Amino acid sequence: MFLTRSEYDRGVNTFSPEGRLFQVEYAIEAIKLGSTAIGIQTSEGVVLAVEKRITSPLMIPSTIEKIVEIDSHIGCAVSGLVADSRTLVDHARVECANHWFVYNENMKVESVAQAVSNLAIRFGDSDDDGPAMSRPFGVAMLFAGLDKSGTQLYHMDPSGTFLEFGAKAIGSGSEGAQQSLQESYHKSMTLQEALKIALTVLKQVMEEKVSGSNVEVAAVTPEKGFHRYPQDEVEAIISGL
Amino acid sequence: MFLTRSEYDRGVNTFSPEGRLFQVEYAIEAIKLGSTAIGIQTSEGVVLAVEKRITSPLMIPSTIEKIVEIDSHIGCAVSGLVADSRTLVDHARVECANHWFVYNENMKVESVAQAVSNLAIRFGDSDDDGPAMSRPFGVAMLFAGLDKSGTQLYHMDPSGTFLEFGAKAIGSGSEGAQQSLQESYHKSMTLQEALKIALTVLKQVMEEKVSGSNVEVAAVTPEKGFHRYPQDEVEAIISGL
Amino acid sequence: MFLTRSEYDRGVNTFSPEGRLFQVEYAIEAIKLGSTAIGIQTSEGVVLAVEKRITSPLMIPSTIEKIVEIDSHIGCAVSGLVADSRTLVDHARVECANHWFVYNENMKVESVAQAVSNLAIRFGDSDDDGPAMSRPFGVAMLFAGLDKSGTQLYHMDPSGTFLEFGAKAIGSGSEGAQQSLQESYHKSMTLQEALKIALTVLKQVMEEKVSGSNVEVAAVTPEKGFHRYPQDEVEAIISGL
Amino acid sequence: MFLTRSEYDRGVNTFSPEGRLFQVEYAIEAIKLGSTAIGIQTSEGVVLAVEKRITSPLMIPSTIEKIVEIDSHIGCAVSGLVADSRTLVDHARVECANHWFVYNENMKVESVAQAVSNLAIRFGDSDDDGPAMSRPFGVAMLFAGLDKSGTQLYHMDPSGTFLEFGAKAIGSGSEGAQQSLQESYHKSMTLQEALKIALTVLKQVMEEKVSGSNVEVAAVTPEKGFHRYPQDEVEAIISGL
Amino acid sequence: MFLTRSEYDRGVNTFSPEGRLFQVEYAIEAIKLGSTAIGIQTSEGVVLAVEKRITSPLMIPSTIEKIVEIDSHIGCAVSGLVADSRTLVDHARVECANHWFVYNENMKVESVAQAVSNLAIRFGDSDDDGPAMSRPFGVAMLFAGLDKSGTQLYHMDPSGTFLEFGAKAIGSGSEGAQQSLQESYHKSMTLQEALKIALTVLKQVMEEKVSGSNVEVAAVTPEKGFHRYPQDEVEAIISGL
Amino acid sequence: MFLTRSEYDRGVNTFSPEGRLFQVEYAIEAIKLGSTAIGIQTSEGVVLAVEKRITSPLMIPSTIEKIVEIDSHIGCAVSGLVADSRTLVDHARVECANHWFVYNENMKVESVAQAVSNLAIRFGDSDDDGPAMSRPFGVAMLFAGLDKSGTQLYHMDPSGTFLEFGAKAIGSGSEGAQQSLQESYHKSMTLQEALKIALTVLKQVMEEKVSGSNVEVAAVTPEKGFHRYPQDEVEAIISGL
Amino acid sequence: MFLTRSEYDRGVNTFSPEGRLFQVEYAIEAIKLGSTAIGIQTSEGVVLAVEKRITSPLMIPSTIEKIVEIDSHIGCAVSGLVADSRTLVDHARVECANHWFVYNENMKVESVAQAVSNLAIRFGDSDDDGPAMSRPFGVAMLFAGLDKSGTQLYHMDPSGTFLEFGAKAIGSGSEGAQQSLQESYHKSMTLQEALKIALTVLKQVMEEKVSGSNVEVAAVTPEKGFHRYPQDEVEAIISGL
Repeated sequence: MFLTRSEYDRGVNTFSPEGRLFQVEYAIEAIKLGSTAIGIQTSEGVVLAVEKRITSPLMIPSTIEKIVEIDSHIGCAVSGLVADSRTLVDHARVECANHWFVYNENMKVESVAQAVSNLAIRFGDSDDDGPAMSRPFGVAMLFAGLDKSGTQLYHMDPSGTFLEFGAKAIGSGSEGAQQSLQESYHKSMTLQEALKIALTVLKQVMEEKVSGSNVEVAAVTPEKGFHRYPQDEVEAIISGL
Repeated sequence: MFLTRSEYDRGVNTFSPEGRLFQVEYAIEAIKLGSTAIGIQTSEGVVLAVEKRITSPLMIPSTIEKIVEIDSHIGCAVSGLVADSRTLVDHARVECANHWFVYNENMKVESVAQAVSNLAIRFGDSDDDGPAMSRPFGVAMLFAGLDKSGTQLYHMDPSGTFLEFGAKAIGSGSEGAQQSLQESYHKSMTLQEALKIALTVLKQVMEEKVSGSNVEVAAVTPEKGFHRYPQDEVEAIISGL
Repeated sequence: MFLTRSEYDRGVNTFSPEGRLFQVEYAIEAIKLGSTAIGIQTSEGVVLAVEKRITSPLMIPSTIEKIVEIDSHIGCAVSGLVADSRTLVDHARVECANHWFVYNENMKVESVAQAVSNLAIRFGDSDDDGPAMSRPFGVAMLFAGLDKSGTQLYHMDPSGTFLEFGAKAIGSGSEGAQQSLQESYHKSMTLQEALKIALTVLKQVMEEKVSGSNVEVAAVTPEKGFHRYPQDEVEAIISGL
Repeated sequence: MFLTRSEYDRGVNTFSPEGRLFQVEYAIEAIKLGSTAIGIQTSEGVVLAVEKRITSPLMIPSTIEKIVEIDSHIGCAVSGLVADSRTLVDHARVECANHWFVYNENMKVESVAQAVSNLAIRFGDSDDDGPAMSRPFGVAMLFAGLDKSGTQLYHMDPSGTFLEFGAKAIGSGSEGAQQSLQESYHKSMTLQEALKIALTVLKQVMEEKVSGSNVEVAAVTPEKGFHRYPQDEVEAIISGL
Repeated sequence: MFLTRSEYDRGVNTFSPEGRLFQVEYAIEAIKLGSTAIGIQTSEGVVLAVEKRITSPLMIPSTIEKIVEIDSHIGCAVSGLVADSRTLVDHARVECANHWFVYNENMKVESVAQAVSNLAIRFGDSDDDGPAMSRPFGVAMLFAGLDKSGTQLYHMDPSGTFLEFGAKAIGSGSEGAQQSLQESYHKSMTLQEALKIALTVLKQVMEEKVSGSNVEVAAVTPEKGFHRYPQDEVEAIISGL
Repeated sequence: MFLTRSEYDRGVNTFSPEGRLFQVEYAIEAIKLGSTAIGIQTSEGVVLAVEKRITSPLMIPSTIEKIVEIDSHIGCAVSGLVADSRTLVDHARVECANHWFVYNENMKVESVAQAVSNLAIRFGDSDDDGPAMSRPFGVAMLFAGLDKSGTQLYHMDPSGTFLEFGAKAIGSGSEGAQQSLQESYHKSMTLQEALKIALTVLKQVMEEKVSGSNVEVAAVTPEKGFHRYPQDEVEAIISGL
Repeated sequence: MFLTRSEYDRGVNTFSPEGRLFQVEYAIEAIKLGSTAIGIQTSEGVVLAVEKRITSPLMIPSTIEKIVEIDSHIGCAVSGLVADSRTLVDHARVECANHWFVYNENMKVESVAQAVSNLAIRFGDSDDDGPAMSRPFGVAMLFAGLDKSGTQLYHMDPSGTFLEFGAKAIGSGSEGAQQSLQESYHKSMTLQEALKIALTVLKQVMEEKVSGSNVEVAAVTPEKGFHRYPQDEVEAIISGL
């Protein structure tokens, strides 16, 4: 009596008979093709660690940038269609700057995630306030930040759903990584422990041997705000695993 | 002579030969995939209780928010596509604030439901006053409020139909829950009884063991207006079931 | 040589080879899914009686409103997609108010039906003066009113056709009800007789037992204008059948 | 080598390989479903006579109006989708009024037909000056009028073609009626003879017995301009057939 | 490897693999369904003669107008979808009037054909300067005129191609007519000879017997500019054939 | 695994799996249906020669114009859909005039080709600066000109690609013609030799016997700029072949 | 359960069930049909070398321009649909000029690549700031430049992804060429060595014999900025291979 699944899955905004929106689900699939990214929240700060895919030995690894700064107190790791993430990241930066100018205080991490989500769910519509998209954004994001409520790690997927996590993995290795995180994560972890766990988990799920040049590591801490770890520090941690 | 059902069900605004609009019916299905929410109206106040789906132990339960405040005298529980509900909730809040500014009185609960319904049925059209949607909203809402006519509980589904109920359940467990509510609901119930019944019914339909962290409970009462129950109070009630 | 019927019936504005517009015909089918409504015109006033479908014992019957006031001298009963009727009812109210302000007289019932019809047939077009609809309105309406020409009952269907009737039934039970009305209707009927006949006919076609809470009754009379019958009066008439 | 006819007939503005526009032809079919209308031009005036279809004994016949006044010197009988005719009739009235205001003279009947035709052929386009239509108008019109060139009868079909006729029948009975008109029409006919012939021909093609309540008769004469015949006069003529 | 012809022929602006635009070719077919029109250019003036199709004896032949005046020095005969020609004729008239106002001289016949062609090829586009058309115009035109370069006859088809001819036939009988014209046309012909030949050729290709009422004849001469031949003069020529 | 070619070739802007844009390739085919045009560049000037297709003996050959003047120093020969070329030629003329007004110097031939190409590749887009086209232009152009860099011959095809050539043939006979040109072309050729070769090649590829009336010849030289060869000079050259 | 690949690949912005955007992947295929281009970065400067496809001996090779200057310090080699690259190159030039005017310094090579990428990923959207494209750009680009961070070589593909490379090949011979580059590239290479390697690799992958006229070579060096190598220097290098 019903059509097969496939008849509903090309209309961007068409419900299937079971009430599903397949294009959003397929966008979520796009993230499973992306590189793995990991976020871990500790009371001392939030760690972000991302795999870099070096597809050619002539590629300069430092140009692959999967972790970006949203504001001095918020960083963001992305996985999926990187080009799609740019619109969202720009939107987040503008919102943060606006908030600072208007209220003279840092924007809450949750509010940033909310603002990005508002843009992400507007695909298919043509609204005035923000660039419209004719399909769901094919990107997942981890927002790591610090505000009056302390350190925070938010995850947002293409459906616009955003939720806070203690530790979260996205991308192609996310299933295994999330499993490992659940086993090793505890609330009283230090930032140093979190860095080690993040790299250990990446090491497990990456096809290539993990090294200072094919991972990117950053953290948001009360002392330094958002900062990236230089390659030698990353290598030091890796060698200490 | 007629085409099979499936030929009509992808056009957002196409009647089938029997006069049905399938995309609206499928949006109603989307709610059956959502988490269960329950509303119970008593003369002392209206109770809202919602299941939280904790899909990962690393998820921070408090970030899942299925009950929102519309105004100090109205709360709303949602089930279905949460992202869709945001546009409707924002619309409800703006309408309430406008009403207050213009008439210096609280907006009637029915009027709020009406305003949200007006927006919900406008999908597929491009009208000037409100964000247009290219498909029906995949969300059901329970409006719990208090106005000059006393306590009130309204239910609205994706077709824009809104009706007052003594007690109403929506979401994946709604069939069983509604049955239980019919058996235990009576008009002279106290708020405390309503809280107990709401949590008892949620306990029956939830797959996971009900606890203070995976349900969200709120009420609207003449004394306190809209207020959420803290986790310890919820746990106290649960342990007393 | 011709395609089968089904090939033409999804285009909102496509003629079939026989010159038919199927989407309009299917919208008319939508009304056959609606609750039954009856209108009877007498020289003393016009009666409207509508079935209320109580699908849950916890539903508050008074929130189901199938009879609305257009102006103090015109009432309207609707059947079909209730959400669709709202745009049309609002349009009728605005037209009535405008007429009164401009001409300082009540708008004629026929003119109200004409104004609503003008809006109803404009689906599929994008015109500036009124909300455009991308499909026919799935609603039938009975306008009961009183003007300089006396009492009047107009019926309008989704094709925008409006005609005056002595007595008319719409909705799921309309075929049987119309037959009964033809047998019992006569021009010299009193309002009281019309009320009795309306409820007798509803009683015949409703699946549930007719009672004061599952029917809605209103009338337009020279003395009181549009007014609803309270539940106890309705029950008194029902018990007297 | 060619597709069958049916492949081209749903595109509103698509030529078939033989150079035909099927949607226009199907709109012409829509008129064959309409009620029969007859126009006869004599030197004393022009007669219009239309069948009224009384589908229910409770319907008030006088509300069916298939003959309308365009201006005091022009009347118009329509057949087909009555709702479609309203836009065209409104356009004709506005054009007549404008002409009178600007030139202080009655608009020529041919010019009125031309103005309506200009609107009718613009379907499928979105032009600024007049309501655009997304399909051909499914209506045929007989314009009966009187101007400096004397009495005139124009016929317009959905393709926008308008031509002058001595006598013309449209609608479901048009084929038989036109045949009868050819046999009995002569140029020196009096208005009274034309009235008789019009009703005789209607009598032949109508399924129901012709009576004063199920036909509508009007005429445009130099003495009275456009005027309708009251029911008793119509009945007098019928009884005299 | 290629699709059959039929797959490309419904897209208004789609090239087939051989580089053809079928909808334009089908529009050219539409002209083969039209009535025959003939134009003959002589040094004394240009003759236009058109067949009138009298489909009913009650039709008034004079209302069929297939030859129109563009300006006092240019006439135009059309064949195909007459309604389509009106936009083009209006455009030609406006261009001629504008030219006269701006330059105080008659517009060249070629420039008129060019202006009309510019409009004809713009179908499918939405440009600001002129009414856009969603399909090719289904009409062929013969422009007969007189300017500083002497008498001229231009032919334009739906593809917008316009070319000068000594004598040209269009419409359903065009193939046979063109053959006859080639045999009898010579450059030193008088206007009177041209009139005779035009009517002789029409006589050959028309299904009905040619008469003063079913042909329309006009000419553009230096003495009289554009002028129509009254029915009696036409009949005199016909009887002299 | 892939669809056949034909599934991709109707979308104006759809890539096939091999990365091809078929509609552009089919537009290039449209030129193979056009009349043959030849351009030859010599140090003394650039020659353009085009075949005229006289399809009827009553056609006036001089009205077929396949070579147009862009500016006094640039001429252009076109082949394919002549109507399409007009937009491009107009654009080229406006660009040339603008350049002269702004810089008081002749526009470079390459810049003209570039400007036309910019317009040609914009089909399918709706941009503000220039008339948008909903399909590729079905026309090829040869720009013959003279600027500070000396004589130049540019060829542009529907893909917007433009390249300089010593000698180039386009249209239905282009394959054979280009072969002949390669054999006989040398850089030190005189203008007279180029004229002879152009007509010799046209003679080879034209189906009809070449004559003064069915070819069009023009040249751009330092002495005369763009100028056409009168029919007698063309005939003199032909007789001397 | 899933549709075959081919069902998703024509929608410009439709995700396949695996989360892929096929039209972008097909655009990447378009580049494999383009001519080969090679970029090599050394500390002394960056070399760009491109194959020219001479399809006719009468073509003037110098008009084929596959390497363009973006700014005095940045050059760009393109492969694929050359017409598409023009919009992107123009955008890059405007961005560079703007940057210089605003900041009085050269724009960073990465920022130029970023700006071009921002435009490239916006296809399918209609945004205000830049020409919108209804399909992905079918072009790959190599940006060779010099800024405060030293010499740099960026590669951008139709998905908008841009990455820095030591050496990179694009176009039809890119697979073999990239392999060769990996074998011979080392960081301490001189510019002269890079030139030799670039031409050696081109020689390997080109079907035709490499010569001074069918390759284009340019470099960006601190001394000269962007400059092309004249044909004789290119020939000298080739003869020295």
